[in-house]
Amino acid sequence: MQYPEPIAKLIDSYMRLPGVGNKTATRLAFFTIDMDQESVDGFADALIAAKKDLHYCSICGNITDVDPCEIDRDPTRDQSTVLVVEQVKDVMSIDRMNEYHGLYHVLHGVLSPSEGKGPEDLNIESLIKRLQTNDAIKEVIIATNATPEGEGTAMYLARLIKPAGIKVTRLAYGLAVGSDIEYADEMTLLKAVEGRTEI
Amino acid sequence: MQYPEPIAKLIDSYMRLPGVGNKTATRLAFFTIDMDQESVDGFADALIAAKKDLHYCSICGNITDVDPCEIDRDPTRDQSTVLVVEQVKDVMSIDRMNEYHGLYHVLHGVLSPSEGKGPEDLNIESLIKRLQTNDAIKEVIIATNATPEGEGTAMYLARLIKPAGIKVTRLAYGLAVGSDIEYADEMTLLKAVEGRTEI
Repeated sequence: MQYPEPIAKLIDSYMRLPGVGNKTATRLAFFTIDMDQESVDGFADALIAAKKDLHYCSICGNITDVDPCEIDRDPTRDQSTVLVVEQVKDVMSIDRMNEYHGLYHVLHGVLSPSEGKGPEDLNIESLIKRLQTNDAIKEVIIATNATPEGEGTAMYLARLIKPAGIKVTRLAYGLAVGSDIEYADEMTLLKAVEGRTEI
Repeated sequence: MQYPEPIAKLIDSYMRLPGVGNKTATRLAFFTIDMDQESVDGFADALIAAKKDLHYCSICGNITDVDPCEIDRDPTRDQSTVLVVEQVKDVMSIDRMNEYHGLYHVLHGVLSPSEGKGPEDLNIESLIKRLQTNDAIKEVIIATNATPEGEGTAMYLARLIKPAGIKVTRLAYGLAVGSDIEYADEMTLLKAVEGRTEI
């Protein structure tokens, strides 16, 4: 016996999601069947709308339903700093803390020679153009991840931007707040010592 | 900054799924945006179709897009045995091993006094009716889970069915194949000793 076609198709759709295997997909499919009609319709509509109405902001590469995005259209934001992140999600992570009020630029990835990802595969050209045409920008904060690829990308960007006389900074390395020194890895400890500040 | 509405709605929809929290929902939503148009449309269609085209078989309670279901319409299946399971998924688990060729009956749950679930909340009435009107059925195999609730439900059904002169059996308890005695719990070991067979 096979599952009836409608459920087999739904299981198949769920299985295309990352981290969802056959068992989870089956569980989600059966859960869906028991959901109320309104929720299922809303889910289907949300899928279609997300694909149809969302695109990348032509200025910063953030995801948006209007162009330019909400942040770039906001005149109250600090127009002198641009914070560069790898992913759209990182914008939200940083903006959520309500401490940074400048602009963003999303690279959509990092330089990764091993995966054949070069500068032309990232949203770098538009960053350079943005810096060239917008005199208000005085500082670029590079907030790529603390991975070898993120580090390499930060170095590459710094070398590219600095000659234009724009200040380039990098997020601080160090111990995570609330973490134990005992469990910190050597590299993190080294960076924490290097970056020590006076109290 | 908030996520644009289309993505916020999609995150919200994903969060209604079991075991999906905010972080996973966000990850899935961003993944969805990067999926190709065809896959997203297929996903939305599958959701709608699963809700619209699937219902429970009027005979056995299994999920189906035609009524009666595939199994009940199949004359080559052994019409003399009915195997009773808790969930639709259990039908698939048992049928997959290709050893049992009889019919099924899905209870859609178990008796659970603590959750206020009584016989009237389960698909029991239709089972009794089925046994009363179908003389071909000679044996009912109760395959509820090996939990206190599953056990209680099995006892309840046995008491209900036996007076009609129909054989009632229960799946065997014992060690799982490939398992270590060292790690088996006491109840399982006890049942394994009780149910020992001659070799």
